[in-house]
Amino acid sequence: MKFLSRRLVMPADLNSRGTLFGGRLLAWVDEEASVYAAIESGADLVATKFISEMDFQAPAYLGDVIELGMEIIDTTRVSITLKCSVRELRSKRNIVRIERMVFIAIDKNGRPIRHAAGPGLSQSDSA
Amino acid sequence: MKFLSRRLVMPADLNSRGTLFGGRLLAWVDEEASVYAAIESGADLVATKFISEMDFQAPAYLGDVIELGMEIIDTTRVSITLKCSVRELRSKRNIVRIERMVFIAIDKNGRPIRHAAGPGLSQSDSA
Amino acid sequence: MKFLSRRLVMPADLNSRGTLFGGRLLAWVDEEASVYAAIESGADLVATKFISEMDFQAPAYLGDVIELGMEIIDTTRVSITLKCSVRELRSKRNIVRIERMVFIAIDKNGRPIRHAAGPGLSQSDSA
Amino acid sequence: MKFLSRRLVMPADLNSRGTLFGGRLLAWVDEEASVYAAIESGADLVATKFISEMDFQAPAYLGDVIELGMEIIDTTRVSITLKCSVRELRSKRNIVRIERMVFIAIDKNGRPIRHAAGPGLSQSDSA
Amino acid sequence: MKFLSRRLVMPADLNSRGTLFGGRLLAWVDEEASVYAAIESGADLVATKFISEMDFQAPAYLGDVIELGMEIIDTTRVSITLKCSVRELRSKRNIVRIERMVFIAIDKNGRPIRHAAGPGLSQSDSA
Amino acid sequence: MKFLSRRLVMPADLNSRGTLFGGRLLAWVDEEASVYAAIESGADLVATKFISEMDFQAPAYLGDVIELGMEIIDTTRVSITLKCSVRELRSKRNIVRIERMVFIAIDKNGRPIRHAAGPGLSQSDSA
Repeated sequence: MKFLSRRLVMPADLNSRGTLFGGRLLAWVDEEASVYAAIESGADLVATKFISEMDFQAPAYLGDVIELGMEIIDTTRVSITLKCSVRELRSKRNIVRIERMVFIAIDKNGRPIRHAAGPGLSQSDSA
Repeated sequence: MKFLSRRLVMPADLNSRGTLFGGRLLAWVDEEASVYAAIESGADLVATKFISEMDFQAPAYLGDVIELGMEIIDTTRVSITLKCSVRELRSKRNIVRIERMVFIAIDKNGRPIRHAAGPGLSQSDSA
Repeated sequence: MKFLSRRLVMPADLNSRGTLFGGRLLAWVDEEASVYAAIESGADLVATKFISEMDFQAPAYLGDVIELGMEIIDTTRVSITLKCSVRELRSKRNIVRIERMVFIAIDKNGRPIRHAAGPGLSQSDSA
Repeated sequence: MKFLSRRLVMPADLNSRGTLFGGRLLAWVDEEASVYAAIESGADLVATKFISEMDFQAPAYLGDVIELGMEIIDTTRVSITLKCSVRELRSKRNIVRIERMVFIAIDKNGRPIRHAAGPGLSQSDSA
Repeated sequence: MKFLSRRLVMPADLNSRGTLFGGRLLAWVDEEASVYAAIESGADLVATKFISEMDFQAPAYLGDVIELGMEIIDTTRVSITLKCSVRELRSKRNIVRIERMVFIAIDKNGRPIRHAAGPGLSQSDSA
Repeated sequence: MKFLSRRLVMPADLNSRGTLFGGRLLAWVDEEASVYAAIESGADLVATKFISEMDFQAPAYLGDVIELGMEIIDTTRVSITLKCSVRELRSKRNIVRIERMVFIAIDKNGRPIRHAAGPGLSQSDSA
């Protein structure tokens, strides 16, 4: 699993109880997952098709650093399937895990296309 | 199923392909579901515990009106389970369905509590 | 009056005094009123033309659920006039009332047009 | 009338028709008016109490610079009344005018107080 | 130096330590500086090219009013250079100073152009 | 240099010319730099003290993936100095480079403290 993006929890990210708003967390996950799917598969554009069940294991708090981990578990000619793990950086506390997020490659008009067969661009975790 | 809240899709809600950003949609769903769970159960505070799989059936576009429908399917002494249906108002196009969203009642310190046994406040769909 | 949309007050919605920012409240009202005007009149696009005086009766707080109520009070061939009532869901406390919000139907270039004469799409408060 | 604040219209500020979202405009007006009322009256905290009718004279577009003009028209021991004029900087096109916005001075608990009798801090339009 | 725009610090503007998020402050500075550069030079569109070093002198807090001051220090046929000073309105506390921000006039395709030679539109600090 | 966070450019991030708003970019840089400084130094809280000059080398566009690279260049008992490089992931196009960003460790009251002497928590770029 690769953790290539992260977010700092600020006051604008909190719900009315003072913990990280679940909707904000899901927005971060969806952004990073679609970037990961597109880059790894070499597709220009992808659309979220399916998200498997999510079990929220622990809340996150103001000042926490949320790491967004992704791993490709399946690639077909029409879809890319990821596994996703979200945790807090300092404590390594698990926040939520998603077993399968399925993305499909689409063209500029939003129609499904076969994505590139190649291994995709390599991830940059150093330079 | 009751549709008690809705959102207009504006440019700030779009992804880089020009359709509704999935993360934004999930944020709207999570906000309305937690309101619905709290009001219906009479609990003051609830936390999202589990979301079952989501199948994205159609994209949404600029100017669409997104209706957020909720229905309680189970209530125990420690949790409230909802079913959720999201559709576009004019076309009645289904956007996404979620079979189960589980919320738990919590106290001010975030610890699970038994929520009120009563039927909760009645929903206001007219006045 | 129909209450077809609502919002949960979160930290990002507060002013520097810790109560709901009036500007955020007005943004919610304007969004829902323009959706209501467009749907009820069958117009595709509407623009806000006039808002009558607003008397802020009570503040709203973190965790409040703000219900946005609308009622059509007049429809002409060129405009739709609504009455608006905003209240807190649990307490039924009135936040603000607006006697008249006038919307005009416009075409894609922003020019006023006569809107459809029909009764418009029926509102969905259940399914 | 003094124009002491302004905003650039960016894509995140637009409605679904591609013009400035009225709710965003009202949020800008409410923010600047409450700052102006507090500074001019010497009050630490003020709350919006009343906004008179608003006639939207022209839309605003992407790239427009929105100037927010304020002028005190009445001050009593319990309230400050402003007049507000919003225009586009380059064209001097009037966007909206508000004849009266009434603010009341409040204490930290949100209760109305008599505000300071003095002329308030002088505005800084140059340095 | 002219102070033609300002912002009220609200909860959504804070970092996880409860002071004004530096990134938010920089966004306000960049917005006002690009407006100032475009208006003063008569250019339609400008792009940020260079920002000199920034020394953060004091934090800002919830409820502070942040004044954004600008002054043109150089104009060539291809660029406009500003000096920028950010301070808190009531206390006149300096928040940050930037000695040079360089903007270049660009055309609709983002290519550098010579901007208008004239003195530009005059600023409106009263009406 | 380590690239541990990234952002997808969406419509809400654009300026009025349709390219990435510089202020938004600076907000992303400031967030990631302060996370990096805090984690690497083992400090709980840090505040931005100084940012050296920034030369904007290329614009970024809708759909670009912005990678935020950081590298520690100096650590003293009172400060942490980073170098920052921002580039677009697919094209490896340089967006902006910052030679020095200085952060100081602070306590809960915002006062400077000596930060921990140790090497800090190790970064997680894989799991």
